[in-house]
Parts: sequence; C-alpha cells; structure tokens
Amino acid sequence: MKARCVAVVVSMIYSAMLAANPSLDEPIKPLPLQLDLDPKKVELGRMLFHETRLSADDSISCSTCHRLDQAGTDRQRVSTGINGHRGAVNSPTVFNSGFNFRQFWDGRARTLEEQVAGPLHNPKEMGSNWTQAIEKLKLSDRYREFFRIYPDGITAKNISNAIATFERSLYTPNSRFDQYLRGRTNAITAEEERGYKLFKSFGCISCHQGVNVGGNMFQKFGVMKDYFKYRRSGNINEADYGRYNVTRNESDKHYFKVPSLRLVALTPPYFHDGSAKTLREAVDVMFEFQLGRIGSDDEKEAIIKFLKSLPGEFPEQGMPRLSNVQE
Amino acid sequence: MKARCVAVVVSMIYSAMLAANPSLDEPIKPLPLQLDLDPKKVELGRMLFHETRLSADDSISCSTCHRLDQAGTDRQRVSTGINGHRGAVNSPTVFNSGFNFRQFWDGRARTLEEQVAGPLHNPKEMGSNWTQAIEKLKLSDRYREFFRIYPDGITAKNISNAIATFERSLYTPNSRFDQYLRGRTNAITAEEERGYKLFKSFGCISCHQGVNVGGNMFQKFGVMKDYFKYRRSGNINEADYGRYNVTRNESDKHYFKVPSLRLVALTPPYFHDGSAKTLREAVDVMFEFQLGRIGSDDEKEAIIKFLKSLPGEFPEQGMPRLSNVQE
Repeated sequence: MKARCVAVVVSMIYSAMLAANPSLDEPIKPLPLQLDLDPKKVELGRMLFHETRLSADDSISCSTCHRLDQAGTDRQRVSTGINGHRGAVNSPTVFNSGFNFRQFWDGRARTLEEQVAGPLHNPKEMGSNWTQAIEKLKLSDRYREFFRIYPDGITAKNISNAIATFERSLYTPNSRFDQYLRGRTNAITAEEERGYKLFKSFGCISCHQGVNVGGNMFQKFGVMKDYFKYRRSGNINEADYGRYNVTRNESDKHYFKVPSLRLVALTPPYFHDGSAKTLREAVDVMFEFQLGRIGSDDEKEAIIKFLKSLPGEFPEQGMPRLSNVQE
Repeated sequence: MKARCVAVVVSMIYSAMLAANPSLDEPIKPLPLQLDLDPKKVELGRMLFHETRLSADDSISCSTCHRLDQAGTDRQRVSTGINGHRGAVNSPTVFNSGFNFRQFWDGRARTLEEQVAGPLHNPKEMGSNWTQAIEKLKLSDRYREFFRIYPDGITAKNISNAIATFERSLYTPNSRFDQYLRGRTNAITAEEERGYKLFKSFGCISCHQGVNVGGNMFQKFGVMKDYFKYRRSGNINEADYGRYNVTRNESDKHYFKVPSLRLVALTPPYFHDGSAKTLREAVDVMFEFQLGRIGSDDEKEAIIKFLKSLPGEFPEQGMPRLSNVQE
C-alpha cells in the first residue's frame, strides 16, 4: 500500500485501458491508482499533520478536525478549535482533497499548500502564526533533522509543502464504482447502477462530476429555491455568503465549492453548515433546493446506494510516534 | 510489531533476566515486552474502538477522546461528547490502561471490560445504551461476521471484551527507562538518572511506582495542603470529590486513582481537572500540594527529564477502514 504513494504512475497501462474501455467516457472519472509523491515529504507531512505544536497552545493539530480514523472529518456540525472556540463551517474531509480545484468551502485557496496557513492563523482554529510555529519546531532535534530534505530547512513554505504532499497521499482509489468505470461491469450491483443512472438523469451529475464526483466548480446553494430563506431563515451568518466573502461580487452570494461525493457515505453531517445529519436528509435537500424536483423514496434510496459504492481503498495509516515529545 | 500482541510471553527469559539483574528490584518495574492477546479480539476491538455507532447520534467513538495519534488523549481540559456537552474530568490516556488496578479517576470500574459501559451510557459522552448500540451493530453484515469469534455473537459483554482486549494491546514497552531497569545502564542519560533519584528521594515514588509508574493505588489530591482551597477555591464540583462519589465515605473525599506517569510527557493537560497545562506546572503543583516540599528549578527540570525517558514503543496503529459504512 505504501508503494502506492511512491511508485511511478503507470500511465501507459492507464492510457491503454482508457482506449479499450468505453465507460471511461462517463462524466465521472476513476481516481488514479498511483501517484508520484516524494515519500520523505509524505512522512514529514504525516508528522506535521498530527503536530499539535502548530497551534497556539499545543492542543490542536490538522488531525483534530480531519481525523484519519473517521474518513478525514470529525463528524461534528462545526469543529472546535483552541480554547473551545466553535468554527464557522463544517470540516470537509481531507481525503481526496488533492483532487479539488480549490480548497475551503469558499475556494479561497488555490492549492493545498496555500490552504495550510488558513487554520494555522484562524483565531478560532489553531490561533497561531508562522513565527510562533516555526520557533517551536526549531526546538526539536527531530524536526531539524527531518527538514534537511529542504535546502532552507524549517520555513512556512516547506511546512506547507510537506503537509500538502502528505494530504495528496490521502486518497481512496479503486472503489467498486471506479472498477465499474474501468470496465468491470459487475463490480457494482444492479441497484447501484440504477442509482448512478438516476444520479445522471435527475441532474446531480451537472455539479458532482469528474474525478472527485464534485470539487471542480462553484455552485449556488439554493439554485431552484432559496435555501437560506426556507430552510435556514433568520440564521444567516457570514459563512453562509460563501464565495462572496472572497470576491465581494453580489453574484457570488451563497456560492460554494461543490463538495466531492467520493466519501459522502462516511462523512456526515453535510453541507457547509453541517445541517443535514444523514445522507437521506442531504439528498432530500439537494432535490428540493438544487434540482427543484421530487424524487420517490425508492429513487432516492437507489441514489444513496450508488453513493455508497464510491469510497475506495484507504491508504494504510501508521500513526506518528512520539511526535509531541519535545525532542 | 503486530507479532508482539500475539506472541506467547517469553516468561523464562524474563525470569532469567530478573535473577541476573539487580535493577529490577527498583520500585518501578519495566512493562512486559509481550502480552498474550487473542489477535481476532484485538482486531474486532480496534474496529469498535473507532466505531461512532456506539454513540446515540453516530458522532462519538472511544477514539474521539482517546486519540491514538495523540498518545491516547484529546489534549483538552475536558472532552466534548454528543451535542457539544463538555465532560466533567480530563480524559486519561488509554495507553497502558490495562496495567492500572482500577479504571476511571475515581476507580469505579475494576476492569477495562467494566469501564466500557461508562462512556457509552454517560449522557455527556456517548449518550447511548446497550440496546441501541447492539441494534445498530447487528444491522452490519461485517460486524455479524466478525462477532462469530464469540459463540453468542453481538452482546454487551462481548463488545466490552473486544474493546478491552484491544485496549490491552495499547501499551508502550521498552522505553529507555525500562531498558535501564533491565540493566542497560547507559540507556538513560546521567541527568535522567539524577532525575529518577530525585523522584525517589523527594517521595514522588511513594505514589508513582510499580509497572505503570502509578495506577496502583488511590491518593488524596492535596495531601500536604488543601488543593481545592488554595488552588481551585470556589470552583469545586462533584467530580472533585473523586473516590467519595463511589464509596460515600467522608474519608475518601478528594481521593483519586494515582495516574500512571508512563506517558505523562505526551499527555497534557494534567490532573482530573485538566488544570495544569505543562509538565512543569504539574510538577510544581505536586511539590506544593502532595509533597509539601520546595524543589529548585534545576531539580524539577531533572525530574522532568526522567519523566521524558518513560514513553516506550507505541504499537503500530493501522486505521480501521470503512468502519462507518453501514455495510
């Protein structure tokens, strides 16, 4: 499994399959089976991802909100940062985030590298800053040693790069659905296939598509009906403005990055506000506010079955050892 | 590393070492290098330990508060359970808990098996009950299959036994200090050895002793000076009564299980109330309220160095995969 992170992409095989296999013309694409990532950066990034010293009071790591034992989320409506502060939006899964076109619900970071500084500086999350974090890491013989892979050692840029590289290693290829896309037609059940067809015909596919079944465009929450008026009236907060907070364009109000559905079966609660507790509730909201259509129970259950065929293989996760001993 | 959990105890070798090695007469004993645990129960217990379905709203698992990537704690003063409820006491590490003579700060459970029902039923933690939890697990083909190792399948007793068996596998043997105890005199530095001697001569050892450097007796918090009057005046809550809540004996007021110091270097904040943020702060409180003595900065730093020699090897932790897909 570890080999997956380090092996060179067998692109020729992939291209050959693509040619031979018509189902790769589907609007959803399979995740690559291998990525070419520097294993030393992945290992350093793993330590940093679990490193509480990145927070002001040494209490919060990336893994606090993006728990690798819970499919990359913390299963809370919103997360809790330093000093018990509650965050503004639901923590999205870190798995497969390397395949999103932007990071954060409002897409304000273009890369995973750029994303790292966000929670680190957010006073409700880690509440720290680069000077403080770097100072603490520099006290550690172990980190000074590990950072030798970068000529300029422990810097904000290198911390971000290592964490981002590790995060790219967190992806879940070879799901039954991906196997189906690659031509193993019996990898999913008839009911799951029916769910996929409904997913396309109802129009879910117009936003949730591509390699991440989402994560490649912005869309308004409430295309067909005002979500914030009918579902959340009186409760609007800044985070609900989404993309508008970045661009200040009136037309971007309530636009969000369409989330990947790759791990949707494993990562309740749903939406930027964590308001939907179950997959069924989330599907209901999508039908009402995004599609403006009415689906039968039976159709929705078939779609949910399809969604459950999407999680693939998780990379094996060794826990970092003693990363918090000041050594 | 996995072999450690399954291998038979090489007790003959250990006995031979004991005879040959005078430092095993020390008041602190090394952790065993191997335990004889059923690997199938360990694996099932690992899944259950990370299983959010044990909580009322599928949001909290054992691992939420006892994070295996943070030395078995969540690094919070007190933990957060379902619906944002804050707990009453600091979550102790799960690592090496199998070597404690009782479980919980007030020692109300005699075994790890008995402990499991506590957080599961606590309305501020998992807020569930056995009927509900068992019902949910029985919906899972995978759990029904895994539980075949128990003739009577999915029961409260068997869930508790599997989780407890997994927890016993979470121990950290072969620390540098244990190697020292086994006769490798240069396994710790001169400063760490000095710290250990001070630890004994100041009297810390009278409570923190044995295989877990603690965890084998109850002791009053505030032996030499009233901790709750001078340190926490006006803030006493039910949890501060400790052992009294179990026995209702006046003489048990403010008595707590002495915590193991095996992972103290990795598990801030400290004490049942999570009031000490750093190891130094905790040592200061111990000097003032438990020993009634004054130590120099230099002596306290040496003791802290000794404490940092105690964490041993962590068992390798594979993450459970897809444990939350309803399959």
